[in-house]
Amino acid sequence: MGNRAQPILCVPVIAVIPFKPVNPKTRLSCLLDQREREAFAEAMLDDVITAVRGTGCDICVLSTSSYSRPGTRVVVDERGLNESLNDFIASSSDPVLVIMADLPLATPEAVNDMLQREGDVVFAPGRGGGTNAIFVRAVRDFHVDYYGASFLKHVRIAGESGLSIGISDSFRLHTDIDEKEDLVELLIHGKGESRRFLESSGFSLKVEKGRVGVERVQ
Amino acid sequence: MGNRAQPILCVPVIAVIPFKPVNPKTRLSCLLDQREREAFAEAMLDDVITAVRGTGCDICVLSTSSYSRPGTRVVVDERGLNESLNDFIASSSDPVLVIMADLPLATPEAVNDMLQREGDVVFAPGRGGGTNAIFVRAVRDFHVDYYGASFLKHVRIAGESGLSIGISDSFRLHTDIDEKEDLVELLIHGKGESRRFLESSGFSLKVEKGRVGVERVQ
Repeated sequence: MGNRAQPILCVPVIAVIPFKPVNPKTRLSCLLDQREREAFAEAMLDDVITAVRGTGCDICVLSTSSYSRPGTRVVVDERGLNESLNDFIASSSDPVLVIMADLPLATPEAVNDMLQREGDVVFAPGRGGGTNAIFVRAVRDFHVDYYGASFLKHVRIAGESGLSIGISDSFRLHTDIDEKEDLVELLIHGKGESRRFLESSGFSLKVEKGRVGVERVQ
Repeated sequence: MGNRAQPILCVPVIAVIPFKPVNPKTRLSCLLDQREREAFAEAMLDDVITAVRGTGCDICVLSTSSYSRPGTRVVVDERGLNESLNDFIASSSDPVLVIMADLPLATPEAVNDMLQREGDVVFAPGRGGGTNAIFVRAVRDFHVDYYGASFLKHVRIAGESGLSIGISDSFRLHTDIDEKEDLVELLIHGKGESRRFLESSGFSLKVEKGRVGVERVQ
């Protein structure tokens, strides 16, 4: 149903996708056991990789623990998200796209639109003050500071370094999957592996008193 | 921070904005009394009108009760949302943009992007299965069916009439303001009247245990 032309990247961009393979997405523990959450996180990672690959970016998965994935470069860094990402960005000579692994609605079109926006840094805000993706053209002058109201922190960090800012406007990149309510978005708008995972695990939409939720039949 | 060129509309489009002036937004009753909710709803309407006006659309506010607004055409229709909108669409000879009055993050760029998408109908999905805006090119062959999982209903209605579908991808049009948590989005990303209303009413962001919420100091 998308219908936009996809410009081809004119400079190399390396996309880095932080990933936690062990015991991820604990806010979904009420619905999914640890083994299922690990499979679900990997399915979401699949969807993000598919979207990013469609733009022509090189991809690196930055994993918090041992993880291998055929056909994809994986770097293991057990430190915190900010430390590992900031070292990654600082050591890159090319622009870096940081994109979270829990954005299964992402499409090549949405990622590409972000990469085409002007700005020394371009942010894709997440719901609730987060930052779901950052395209860092100014790799020497920007650092990330995740957790809490990270979007506002990132805007401030860019401002302090005199960097120009672009904002992505995409609900697909805005929608990170953390909680039960977020699964509604995936069951409505998802088309990839993680939606199939949910459906094959017995999840479906439930409309009750005009509100849309999810239910699981096992 | 937006940086996209704004194509000019090449055909007349009439934008209709449903509006409930009396006792709106009752899910915010925990934070705002009725008089405040009415002022807040009007401030959000202001922001939507500003965004839509920036695209060159004609505008009609479709109000559930007596309401006047200098410089804006207002039609009062006390019937339900679906009945009044479907009569409005069926009687139009031009394409109709239905856009909700509670989308204060809307910008001319986001609305314009929607109007440029291909499709006999173009939907801007709302969070939780809703439909925040619909651009109806096929005014003879489409009708709305709001409430519940309206997005899926609208996709089905279009399919049953053999209409082609476009999907807007904008977090600004995806974010409708209904509940306390939604005010976080407005205080972070809003720039218009409704953000000013919240701030002048004592609302601000509160970061606690890594989560972002709102607090009110009166």
